[in-house]
Amino acid sequence: MAGEFALIDKYFARPTPSAVLGPGDDCALLQPSPGKQLAVTTDMLVAGTHFLPDTDPRNLGWKALAVNLSDLAAMGAQPRWVTLAGAMPAVDEAWIAKFAEGFFACAAEYCVDVVGGDTTRGPLNLCITALGEVEPGQALRRDGAKPGDQIWVSGRPGLASLGLAHLQGKIKLPEPWPRLCVGALEKPRPRIALGLALNGIASAAIDVSDGLLADLGHIAERSGCAAAVKLVQLPHLPKGDSYDAVLRKMALECQLTGGDDYELCFTAPGPQSLAISRIAAELELPLWCIGEMTAGPAGEVTVFDPDGKLVEFDCKGFDHFA
Amino acid sequence: MAGEFALIDKYFARPTPSAVLGPGDDCALLQPSPGKQLAVTTDMLVAGTHFLPDTDPRNLGWKALAVNLSDLAAMGAQPRWVTLAGAMPAVDEAWIAKFAEGFFACAAEYCVDVVGGDTTRGPLNLCITALGEVEPGQALRRDGAKPGDQIWVSGRPGLASLGLAHLQGKIKLPEPWPRLCVGALEKPRPRIALGLALNGIASAAIDVSDGLLADLGHIAERSGCAAAVKLVQLPHLPKGDSYDAVLRKMALECQLTGGDDYELCFTAPGPQSLAISRIAAELELPLWCIGEMTAGPAGEVTVFDPDGKLVEFDCKGFDHFA
Repeated sequence: MAGEFALIDKYFARPTPSAVLGPGDDCALLQPSPGKQLAVTTDMLVAGTHFLPDTDPRNLGWKALAVNLSDLAAMGAQPRWVTLAGAMPAVDEAWIAKFAEGFFACAAEYCVDVVGGDTTRGPLNLCITALGEVEPGQALRRDGAKPGDQIWVSGRPGLASLGLAHLQGKIKLPEPWPRLCVGALEKPRPRIALGLALNGIASAAIDVSDGLLADLGHIAERSGCAAAVKLVQLPHLPKGDSYDAVLRKMALECQLTGGDDYELCFTAPGPQSLAISRIAAELELPLWCIGEMTAGPAGEVTVFDPDGKLVEFDCKGFDHFA
Repeated sequence: MAGEFALIDKYFARPTPSAVLGPGDDCALLQPSPGKQLAVTTDMLVAGTHFLPDTDPRNLGWKALAVNLSDLAAMGAQPRWVTLAGAMPAVDEAWIAKFAEGFFACAAEYCVDVVGGDTTRGPLNLCITALGEVEPGQALRRDGAKPGDQIWVSGRPGLASLGLAHLQGKIKLPEPWPRLCVGALEKPRPRIALGLALNGIASAAIDVSDGLLADLGHIAERSGCAAAVKLVQLPHLPKGDSYDAVLRKMALECQLTGGDDYELCFTAPGPQSLAISRIAAELELPLWCIGEMTAGPAGEVTVFDPDGKLVEFDCKGFDHFA
């Protein structure tokens, strides 16, 4: 047993002040806050599917946790605890040390304790379960949007997939976008503070992991209405000396269908727009009103160009089994 | 998205009466019972490491959940909710349907709701996180054993690994053991009721997943004392017409070092033995007092033969990275 357990202890058993009992027993023990509801999410990341096997393990550690915390953010929950299970082909201590560094940096940034885990031999795979807390009735579900609600998105969706295209040599981004886009890809920042601020304000929310249109479609479907997005209201994307038609097309595609951004897309009744402006100012985070929910067919997402004409898109997101 | 989400919905999104919000949103929402503590455990099962790729998917579904519930049992917790994340090389609907059948059979048997999950492409891998509840201060931790406490084990540890050896043709078990041993291997029964009954009675507990001596060693190490096991007090194992020296040796080895049984090994002060006998009778589950904790070196496990002589063992359990 020594090998496996020594490995876990050395890199992943750190103090867990917010737990009654941390790693090392059959279970971790946690004391939920009185009256709060528990938000639970789990994500599995597979080498070759979600990340390249040669991804910098520090970045991978950060991102593996960040994408789970993003689901808590999309629910308006306060992150509290996480578990981490991992399979790897062999024990590579240098890799594990760097992965743990990135993982715990993200845990520290967002104040979550790593309360348990499991390590085993197998093709590289990471599975994280995150637990957060939210006041009963305040959670930002996907099913609360109503026709007439405004559609909002935070930050600049599309940056991560532009960063990937840049790294792959498919496009050459003008300055200063390479750093911004690659940063968005490698070190996404879950919008925890935004999710918490939207408690009681947003009618529905989701994090943009599969692509803006696809994820907005999930809100529309679960809410039983449609969504209309106006291109002219989207955030600006890369312009520069090398700004050309190829880049412009790619930028728009990334914005609408690129995944991996972990911005929040949310809906809110029109009268909340002032409150939302205040949140944007307080968090120093751009929030864009990009369209409106409509009484159209459940799950339908339509996009209009600056002239009010309908725009067609082929790809609405990323499907691991497509 | 349709492919992936339709797949999840069809087989894994079932009613979740014990959840505020089940699968399909960014997170599940749960309402913990007032005042209770939450016990959390996560396990990753990898094809080729924990099970053969051609394992019957029904059995695999049952066992994948059962081994997690066993960790809750070892903590004395009442199982409530689980999440399931899985990677598979391709969508095999027949396989998924059978896996789900076994998984939900186990969930129904032990009254847990499957509240969330994630499905992705990759080498076959299953990761389950289970949540249970326990009264504050009542959890069966590994670190509470004291010198003089009696050591107990439930059922007949060793059956699962005997079943494996039988299936692999290494031994030929006499009747009626093949059915019992293969059943223990393929459909382990987490000792939930025992764990709950031991609240306030046991001083420490663990489930036998790595092997009796190895897991008892974890209790001893965390409790800062040693353990002495007497062979003569162990449950009887296969005897029959074909009972021979090879089988006897194998049976003893499996009993002491074979994993995958998911019986509970626990310690309790001597005066609790009557209460423990009553529990055995009520649950119709054999409970064996197999030795005593001692003031020896922390983590040391010694085994004595019927003549009181020390017995040596090479292998103390299973280490995925050994």
